[in-house]
Formats: sequence, structure tokens, C-alpha cells
Amino acid sequence: MAFLKVVPLEKALEVINSFPLEPKVEKVPLGEALGRVLAEDIASPIDVPPFDRATVDGYAVRAEDTFMASESEPVRLRVVGEINAGDTPEIELKPGESVYISTGAPLPKGADAVIQFEDVEREDDEVVIYKPAYPSLGVMKAGADIPKGKLLLRKGTRLTFKETALLSAVGLSEVPVFRKPRVAVISTGNEVVLPGDELEQGQIYDINGRAIADAVRELGGEAFFLGIARDDRESLKALVEKGVECCDIVLLSGGASGGIRDLTNSIIEELGEVKIHGIAIQPGKPTVIGLIDGKPVFGLPGYPTSCLTNFTLLVAPLLRKLIGREGEVRKVRKRLAHKVFSVKGRRQFLPVKIEGEKAVPILKGSGAVTSFVDADGFIEVPENVEILDAGEEVEVTFFG
Amino acid sequence: MAFLKVVPLEKALEVINSFPLEPKVEKVPLGEALGRVLAEDIASPIDVPPFDRATVDGYAVRAEDTFMASESEPVRLRVVGEINAGDTPEIELKPGESVYISTGAPLPKGADAVIQFEDVEREDDEVVIYKPAYPSLGVMKAGADIPKGKLLLRKGTRLTFKETALLSAVGLSEVPVFRKPRVAVISTGNEVVLPGDELEQGQIYDINGRAIADAVRELGGEAFFLGIARDDRESLKALVEKGVECCDIVLLSGGASGGIRDLTNSIIEELGEVKIHGIAIQPGKPTVIGLIDGKPVFGLPGYPTSCLTNFTLLVAPLLRKLIGREGEVRKVRKRLAHKVFSVKGRRQFLPVKIEGEKAVPILKGSGAVTSFVDADGFIEVPENVEILDAGEEVEVTFFG
Repeated sequence: MAFLKVVPLEKALEVINSFPLEPKVEKVPLGEALGRVLAEDIASPIDVPPFDRATVDGYAVRAEDTFMASESEPVRLRVVGEINAGDTPEIELKPGESVYISTGAPLPKGADAVIQFEDVEREDDEVVIYKPAYPSLGVMKAGADIPKGKLLLRKGTRLTFKETALLSAVGLSEVPVFRKPRVAVISTGNEVVLPGDELEQGQIYDINGRAIADAVRELGGEAFFLGIARDDRESLKALVEKGVECCDIVLLSGGASGGIRDLTNSIIEELGEVKIHGIAIQPGKPTVIGLIDGKPVFGLPGYPTSCLTNFTLLVAPLLRKLIGREGEVRKVRKRLAHKVFSVKGRRQFLPVKIEGEKAVPILKGSGAVTSFVDADGFIEVPENVEILDAGEEVEVTFFG
Repeated sequence: MAFLKVVPLEKALEVINSFPLEPKVEKVPLGEALGRVLAEDIASPIDVPPFDRATVDGYAVRAEDTFMASESEPVRLRVVGEINAGDTPEIELKPGESVYISTGAPLPKGADAVIQFEDVEREDDEVVIYKPAYPSLGVMKAGADIPKGKLLLRKGTRLTFKETALLSAVGLSEVPVFRKPRVAVISTGNEVVLPGDELEQGQIYDINGRAIADAVRELGGEAFFLGIARDDRESLKALVEKGVECCDIVLLSGGASGGIRDLTNSIIEELGEVKIHGIAIQPGKPTVIGLIDGKPVFGLPGYPTSCLTNFTLLVAPLLRKLIGREGEVRKVRKRLAHKVFSVKGRRQFLPVKIEGEKAVPILKGSGAVTSFVDADGFIEVPENVEILDAGEEVEVTFFG
């Protein structure tokens, strides 16, 4: 069902949320998991440590053999072997016996304590013990750090080096993570050229292509910049088709000309279905949203700040959903640094810069590149509000 | 000059800072610049916009031609052409003339204002104007957004999508950034195996290799995990040589056994020079630091928390220096959640978790994997302090 007139933002978000895209899961090698988002709860498949482990260098003993030890009447145990870290001990301690053991080595059967070598004396094949050891002294029991089956990490966790190290500790070499959504990015406009090309009179360099592609990457998606479509049907259609073929989502940003919007609209209509045809917000009225082969296609406004604002409002939530970061908070409450005026009957989003506890409105106009570079995000001025006073509390939504 | 006994942390940092490593600069394509750190100040090579640009759809006029216009006595100008975005206008406006112009198009010579089409009437080849236009109405002047030569971004800036978009806007297709330091990561220990391998009795999975490699990546370096060296000279020497060959920095983390430290020491001595042989901190006393072929080699402690603490104290500052992020603050002041005890005469670093305004000490022992996973960073307990009381202000240094 297409909306032939502008719809409220909430309606647009509802439509976007109903698009037939679901988070997908893939397994990646642990060495490539950094920064990815877990797609499943992870429980430990093993005990850590996997065996009773010496935590000091010293002598593994049966604690009960030492209970009578004292300074005046030390206990003497026969040293029947040596176990180092990485060894597989085949010794079984019998009463009156001990083995030399190094930190990290597995305790032999029968032993339940390790007395560090500084606390004993060695005399030939005997160790002299001057005070009792209690069971578990100098030992980390199997599973004491992480018991087998323990829930380690929850679905939705973004993996930092601490989490990848934890997964390594329990021996997982592959990790289920959300697949990165593939996003095609297309710039449009006869006047737009790529950085590095020579500017002819009347031309400007592309901004939105880079901004959107890199914003997608920061969010955790994969971006494919397909290039610049000219203001003609064939050029634009070819790139949209390429985008739908290679990616999950297609993002276009309009040139300055209004013609692009109609072209985008008509191409989506030909190849699929237009779902949204304008949203009742400023900036964003000319935003077009459709579905082609089940893949969302967004036609975003051309002015950089407008483009980025609409990307933040409409596309970023969809990307976060696909990547398992839905709950992420990207808002902060600040106080307005100075008064701003809006137009009654218009739901407006204004770029602001955060300075300490203040939100400073940036009033350069949405055509200025520097207005989104200077801004950290935007605030909303509701439809029925004409003036927001200095000092009023506002909610700042960060770009991206 | 080698220090044959333990040195204070400050001395170790001085030695590390004097190592013959300097930040290196490379040019990367703009499309790969996201997340990198600028190695030079960037000034705009062009005016943005590069020409006087229409900001509305309408009629470009000589403002003075309209000064007499009023509702009752409108001015009529002849429409002599049309200019769209991307066009190279060859028209020059003469008095009494106007052209139809679309948003983003360059103004023709002679014109200095654009009146939006909603405000005028079109009658055949004439436009009827009802009120005066002032010069610059509907126009963004060349350089009004960014004048040529303006300092845009400072050396040391980490590039987010906003900065890459800005660089795109001024047409830069290549960006000078700090080269990522190449870091070889080696784990050691007879008992250590890689995730995915079957655990034999007495073996544990590697933790430090993954933790350190991914911590290096998060800091902005390139990490190369070279594998696990066994507790024998040849195995360890081969990997150290490989690390020195492929990388700028070599990081080893010891197994639980103390033997690794002596091996590392002796191998550095053979291949280069030992510079630090123990640091008067806990954990970290067994840390060995040397230079081989001008490349720093760090032998870090084996216990995960100790390893990570020493990485944070000793290696991370070096990486930040190489990557142009030297000034980055990784500390925060909190209040201690409960009393902790230390040993007098020992400068100790204790892992803590941050909960709101509190720093909660993690007292599981440095052998526990979970103690560094739970912790956010560490606090320092100075040499002459035995007790830190609950509520005392502490400085937490984040891991990494």
C-alpha cells in the first residue's frame, strides 16, 4: 500500500519496521570477531580451569598428611616426581608422598593442596613441612573460574577484546554473530563529481555518498558506494538495479534538483512498490521509500544535513535492528544554549552541537557542509511549538 | 644499558619512550580513511561552494533591476534561458534579463540574486516580479561555506564519517594518516593450546594472545598473532625472529611457568639488548623489555589480568604515540566501593569494575580469566599505602 501523501514520521517508521528483513546469523573465526555483535547467548563448553591447577610453584601434597606439622615437629614427605605446566601427570599420590609442581600444572591424583616452595625445605628426596596445609591451598579447582555451562555472554553483546579473550579462554574458535547488512550507496545529481576528479564550472564534490557509506560502516554494516547517477532515468535505474542485486538495502541521496525525487519514485514504481512518498517532517519531506524484490530503497534528501538527519531517523534504526544493536541509546538530554524559532505546523529537526551541558543550535542552513560537520546531532521542535527558549531541556539525537 | 634489577615504572616508561620508533605517515584513499588518524593539518584546497550557487528554484536576476518592483507596479524581466544544476552557464545577464535557474545551479554572470518561483509569475517569455530582491537573496556565494585555504581538520583527528564527508566535500581523494604500527603477538607455554584444538589433560586454552592482539587492533594497530611458543629456546627464538622481521613491535606473554621469562631474556640478549629486567610494580615484576634490530620486544606476565595491566601501562602509550593519539585520556575518577588492603612497600595495581560513580575492586586473583573480563580497568595503590578506605577517590585507568 503506497501513501500518496506525506505521512507522519511514526507511520514511516512502522512501515520500515514491517519490511521483510530479519537479522541473519553467520559464524566467523574468533580472530575476526572483534567489534561484531553476538547473535546467540554463549555458555561455556568447558570448565576453566579444566583441571585442578597449581597456582604457585611448590609441592603438591595430601593435605591430611600435613595436619600434624609444626615448627618443632615438621612433617617429612617423600618427593616422588615433578609435574610442570603442560604435563599429563600419571603419578597418583599415596600417603606420605608429594611431588614438585610448577604453577599452572595439573595436580596429581590424590593431591589436594600445593605448599609454595618458600614455605618448605627440601632435603634430598624429602620435603620438610613446618605447618599444616588445608585442602585447596595453592590450588584453583577445576571450574572455579568458569564452570562448564555457565552463561558467559548474552546475545547482542558487541565484542571487545575482553569478550574475544573470554571466548578464547573457553576454546571457541568460531563465533555466531549477526551478519553485516550490505548497503548500496548511490549519489545523484548532474553537478556532483567524485573527489580526485577535476571540478568543471558548476560542479561540486560529492558529500553524501561518503557520509552515508561511512556512517553505515560505523554502525556495523557493509557499505558499497556504487557511484553517482546522473539526473536521467537510465543512469539512475541502472544503479538502483545494481544496488538491489548486490545488497540488502539501497540508499540514494538526491542531488539539489527536485527532479531526482520524481525519478527515484518512478523507478521504484517500475521495479517494485513505493511505500512512502514524503514524510511530514522538516527536513525530510521529499524522502521516498519503497521496496524492490523485498529490499528497501530509500531516496534521501540532497542537502547533507537533511540527508544525514533522515538517515539517522529512518535508516539507522533498521540497520541497528539487523545487527542486533536495537536497544542502543543514541540520545542525551541537554539544555538549549539559545532561543530557536520554528514554524508552527511544522515538525522540525534542528542540528545542534554539544558543548558541556548545552546544546548549541547550528543555524547555517541545511545546504552548508559545515553545518553537519559542526553538529553532533539534532533536536526536535514539535509541530505545535514556535519557540524553544534558552535553557529549555532538549533531547539530542546523535547523528548515525 | 640494561637494568639488571627491577626499576621503577617511570624509569621503564622513559626507556620505552626513548626507543627509536617514530610515527610514520601514509596516504590512504578517502574510502579507506574511516577510523584512521590524520597525520597533517588539512586546509581546504577549494572554495565550497566553488561558485555562486542558487539555493532555491526560481529566477536569477540583477537585483538592481528589481529595486522598483511593488505589488501595484511589478517589474517585468525577459527570461533569456535556463540553467540547471551541473550546467556550465554561458549566458551573461544584461539589464532587464533573467534566467530560470534550479537549486544548486551556478549563477550566470551579471546575476546576483535568485527569486524563488513561488514569489513571481511567469508570463510567456517574461517573469513578473512584485517585490525587490536584494543582492545575495537565494544565493550561496562561492566560499561562503568553506573558503579556500581554511583549516578544516587538525593533525591527530580520528576520522569519523563526518570528517571523511568533509574531506570529500573539498575534493580530497587521498588522506595522510598515521601508519598502523605492526605488532607481532606471541603466546608461550607448554600447557597452552589454541581455541578449536582438543584439550589434553593439563592443557588450557590461550587467552593472552587473543586479548593482546585484539587490544592492539582496538587501539588502531595491526596485530599479527604468530602462535604459541613452547617452553624451549628454539621454539621461542624462531617466533621472536619472525616477529622482529614482520613487525615494528613484538609482544610475548608468558605461560604460567617462570622459565619463559629467563628464556625471553636470554633470547633478547642473544639477538639484541635487554633494556628492562623487571619493574617494581605488582603485577609486572617479571616483565622483560628489550630491543632487537631497533624493535621493542616486550615479555609480559602470563596471568591474563597481569598481562593486560602491563600492556596498558607499558605498551599502549607507545602504540598511542605511534598512531598520533598520544593525548587521549583513558582515566576517570571514581570512589572506591569498599576497602582494599595492599602490602606496604609494594606498588600495586588492582583491577576494578566501574558501577556508576563507584570503582568496585575485583578480588579474584590475577589467575582468573573472569577477573579481567569483569574489570574495566585498574587503580594504583602506592608503595607507602596499606589500606584504601571505602569512599576514597581513586583514579581508574581503563584497560587497553
